[in-house]
Amino acid sequence: MTSTWEEKAADKRARINDSIPKEWRIQKLPTEDSVLEYPAKSGILSNEELSITQSSASDLVKKLAHGELKSVEVTVAFCKRAALAHQLLNCCLEFFPELAIAQAKELDEYFEVHKKPVGPLHGLPISLKDQLRVKGLETSMGYVAWLGKYDTTESTLVTLLRKAGAIFYTKTSVPQTLMVCETVNNIIGRTVNPRNKNWSCGGSSGGEGAMIGFRGGLIGVGTDIGGSIRVPSAFNFLYGIRPSHGRLPYAKMANSMEGQETVHSVVGPMAHSAADLKLFLTSVLGEEPWKYDSKVVPLPWRQSEEEVIKSKLSSGLTLGYYSCDGVVLPHPPVTRGVEMVVSTLKKHGHQVLPWLPYKHDFGHDLIGDIYASDGSTDVLKSINASGEPSIPNIKDLLNPDKGKIDMNQLWDVHLKKWNYQSEYLDKWREFEENHGRELDAIIAPITPTAAIRHNQFRYYGYASVINLLDFTSVVVPVTFADKSVDLKRSDHRQLSELDATVQAEYDPEVYHGAPVAVQVIGRRLSEERTLAIAEEIGRLLGNIQTL
Amino acid sequence: MTSTWEEKAADKRARINDSIPKEWRIQKLPTEDSVLEYPAKSGILSNEELSITQSSASDLVKKLAHGELKSVEVTVAFCKRAALAHQLLNCCLEFFPELAIAQAKELDEYFEVHKKPVGPLHGLPISLKDQLRVKGLETSMGYVAWLGKYDTTESTLVTLLRKAGAIFYTKTSVPQTLMVCETVNNIIGRTVNPRNKNWSCGGSSGGEGAMIGFRGGLIGVGTDIGGSIRVPSAFNFLYGIRPSHGRLPYAKMANSMEGQETVHSVVGPMAHSAADLKLFLTSVLGEEPWKYDSKVVPLPWRQSEEEVIKSKLSSGLTLGYYSCDGVVLPHPPVTRGVEMVVSTLKKHGHQVLPWLPYKHDFGHDLIGDIYASDGSTDVLKSINASGEPSIPNIKDLLNPDKGKIDMNQLWDVHLKKWNYQSEYLDKWREFEENHGRELDAIIAPITPTAAIRHNQFRYYGYASVINLLDFTSVVVPVTFADKSVDLKRSDHRQLSELDATVQAEYDPEVYHGAPVAVQVIGRRLSEERTLAIAEEIGRLLGNIQTL
Repeated sequence: MTSTWEEKAADKRARINDSIPKEWRIQKLPTEDSVLEYPAKSGILSNEELSITQSSASDLVKKLAHGELKSVEVTVAFCKRAALAHQLLNCCLEFFPELAIAQAKELDEYFEVHKKPVGPLHGLPISLKDQLRVKGLETSMGYVAWLGKYDTTESTLVTLLRKAGAIFYTKTSVPQTLMVCETVNNIIGRTVNPRNKNWSCGGSSGGEGAMIGFRGGLIGVGTDIGGSIRVPSAFNFLYGIRPSHGRLPYAKMANSMEGQETVHSVVGPMAHSAADLKLFLTSVLGEEPWKYDSKVVPLPWRQSEEEVIKSKLSSGLTLGYYSCDGVVLPHPPVTRGVEMVVSTLKKHGHQVLPWLPYKHDFGHDLIGDIYASDGSTDVLKSINASGEPSIPNIKDLLNPDKGKIDMNQLWDVHLKKWNYQSEYLDKWREFEENHGRELDAIIAPITPTAAIRHNQFRYYGYASVINLLDFTSVVVPVTFADKSVDLKRSDHRQLSELDATVQAEYDPEVYHGAPVAVQVIGRRLSEERTLAIAEEIGRLLGNIQTL
Repeated sequence: MTSTWEEKAADKRARINDSIPKEWRIQKLPTEDSVLEYPAKSGILSNEELSITQSSASDLVKKLAHGELKSVEVTVAFCKRAALAHQLLNCCLEFFPELAIAQAKELDEYFEVHKKPVGPLHGLPISLKDQLRVKGLETSMGYVAWLGKYDTTESTLVTLLRKAGAIFYTKTSVPQTLMVCETVNNIIGRTVNPRNKNWSCGGSSGGEGAMIGFRGGLIGVGTDIGGSIRVPSAFNFLYGIRPSHGRLPYAKMANSMEGQETVHSVVGPMAHSAADLKLFLTSVLGEEPWKYDSKVVPLPWRQSEEEVIKSKLSSGLTLGYYSCDGVVLPHPPVTRGVEMVVSTLKKHGHQVLPWLPYKHDFGHDLIGDIYASDGSTDVLKSINASGEPSIPNIKDLLNPDKGKIDMNQLWDVHLKKWNYQSEYLDKWREFEENHGRELDAIIAPITPTAAIRHNQFRYYGYASVINLLDFTSVVVPVTFADKSVDLKRSDHRQLSELDATVQAEYDPEVYHGAPVAVQVIGRRLSEERTLAIAEEIGRLLGNIQTL
């Protein structure tokens, strides 16, 4: 009864397809590059269901808490839209509408009896990256070898979201290994961007990016060790937060390189507004995750920290910014995006000053060495266990010949990391001393490109250096690439070979319309302040709630 | 010009002795086992100086802040008493009264001009373990090979204490490697306990234990990766706090196994009262250490957390306790100490319930493997660089034949650690669910013995498991061994070979009078609550301020 990896993958694909009820199946796939308009034309969602899915999570939980909506209605609406998402974008590794609707019924019954919600997320469907474990389901994480193992434990975050009233209905796709920013695996293949199938949805939380971007859900849970929440947020015109390590519970989640602690992967939400990110954070923190997961810092949501920012808005925030990290110059749409944010902020009375990226080349190399510290032993073990090949995107990054570093070399890496982090803090303090005021955050690109063409994601440094620093970072959607203004640079002097390659790949025509974002970077564990600044930037840009 | 390690050590000893002014030299060393009474009889300290050194840090900073005392007076008083300490107890690796008095003069001048203190520690001498770097001084940490290197950078904690107004005058002795709980090195030899030279002062912050126990200082700075703050606090009848990792800045300190991050060494104060520990914590946190050291969590002193405990005092705290961890049964004075605390708390209306130590044997073994994860490469390098031999106490713990674990084995260790920590939190929650109320802290032994006889420290588990859990722990002095009630057990059934050895070494006669302490254990980063509980226990025992 042994089967090949191809058979195992085909079986899983069939099972995912079978999980979609007949009446939600698309008879004829659309041919357009963008499928954003498809749900309204599909005939599968009612007007009410369209309206629910085009709402915000914050609005929905209010209505659910007041009995104006039933969880079953809301859940069915999102299950339908998620079913369309999978058929159009290929984004689900698990889809389980029956379990979701059963859970919704229980919550509706609870509400009927108690006349109050179970928690702040009562009845709201939340989409999960396929690293989070739900009892009875598979967590393949894109590895063929992991198929057929059904979870008997539940990730702590799932438990706490459930306590807060959330409903689960899908687990979304990831790239094999999680270590790249596009979403391709040998089980279901590639996930694409709902705005244009020729663009990547980003990765590694790319299934979430596509699903939430398509409004198959309003809040998705991603993880980030080198951009994996922020890149798909950026590529799908979403807000996303990479909290600092220790803010949200990661316990009992699946992972590649599990146990690696030099740079921690963190978990966080992706959504259409900063307000919905806040809803997620306050709801999870309200469950006191530090009483369950030893790595979580006992920090409830600090409303006072949010208020510090709000109280500064009238007199003006002090922000730093950079358009280029000195290693790879972003494409014209991205540098224009940063400039838009800077000029908009200045127009509204905020002080925005240049920030000199401190040794980002060093940071980028150091975190690269950390990712490779076991000579790819762990990910290769998971790939090779089924005989599947490495996906092309990861192939070049795997370097088993380099071998493992040893314990004393690792300790040296730790010291380099700590020194670099503390030196970065020195620069932050020096900036404050020089300008005589607090530096509230730094604005920067999150990728060198707008939502990227497939197989062209080459430079992770804008994201990964922030992981190395463990700074809090919130992605804010800004604008879209525009071939009429974002002309190809003719006078570019290359910063590096990689920079030249990236520049050469810019094509105003094919990027036209692709989402552009920035990240707002705050010091470690500054989620309240940084999110408040991100929200204000979104408000000033007119993007407070994205489509 | 090369010299042997013996010559280098002799030279350092001579330099330390030379740093003591002639008029502070003891002409004839006393023969008594205890030297606690010596300063009053020495003729070297004036009555006023005796009174200053017999005061509390909290009182002194108030008087300094109001101009009732000058920093020079206070500094000279402690320098004198520290000079006696070194001559009697052999506890200093650096002694620099001239620098200290110069610093005190500057502070007095500042006060003269500005009529206010520079910070909350204005003019107060603070003693430093010889891991903290002060510009221009040596940090040998007990390694002969490190002698002759003069620091050009300063530890972050030193910088922040200086900003808060603290004065530095000595750096105290440690055991070679720091990895044992007695204080012996090949530079100055053994540091002994001021209450009885036949007892250990503990370790690795043993120089601090002896110095503060002798009142050569009122607050000392120690570090703890397996008991090194708590054991010397206990053995010298002091309070001491092992904060959780990330509460206080450790950046730019010297260390053995620098860069090892699986279990972090932490830094914290030792003092004669919980109030003085709090003075230290609030003063350092007031300098916002998270803006300097990336590992520090941005948590100011949370007075509201302290108040939670204070508000519970009338209705009663809920505490767990254990007298035995299941691996080694403590000697009779220690189990009696725990019982004293439990019965005293009960008498005052607090609920004190048995706590079942969860897999402490596993925890003890796991942290032992972590200490040994580089096959002792790092410490042996530092020992061998000068040709000095290993001290007897560390010899058996070094195991180079075991070799280094590799990266994937380390990641397995990390997962084991995380699971164990989270399971311990599960037990804490279950206790709370079973009893329908919050568990405020756990009372436990910190060592299996009262202040121990030299070369008999064998079992670190009472301390080290708490390091593995990264729980906050505060040592509270309780009582003294008493041969009339702490009889040798005749009916002991051994728990392990180690347990049998430890039991056999109990001798009521030689332990008579030795300090006995407990530790009060709170969850991670619970310094405010745990310290408030420790203070209350001290108050109920009549030990709120120790001699």
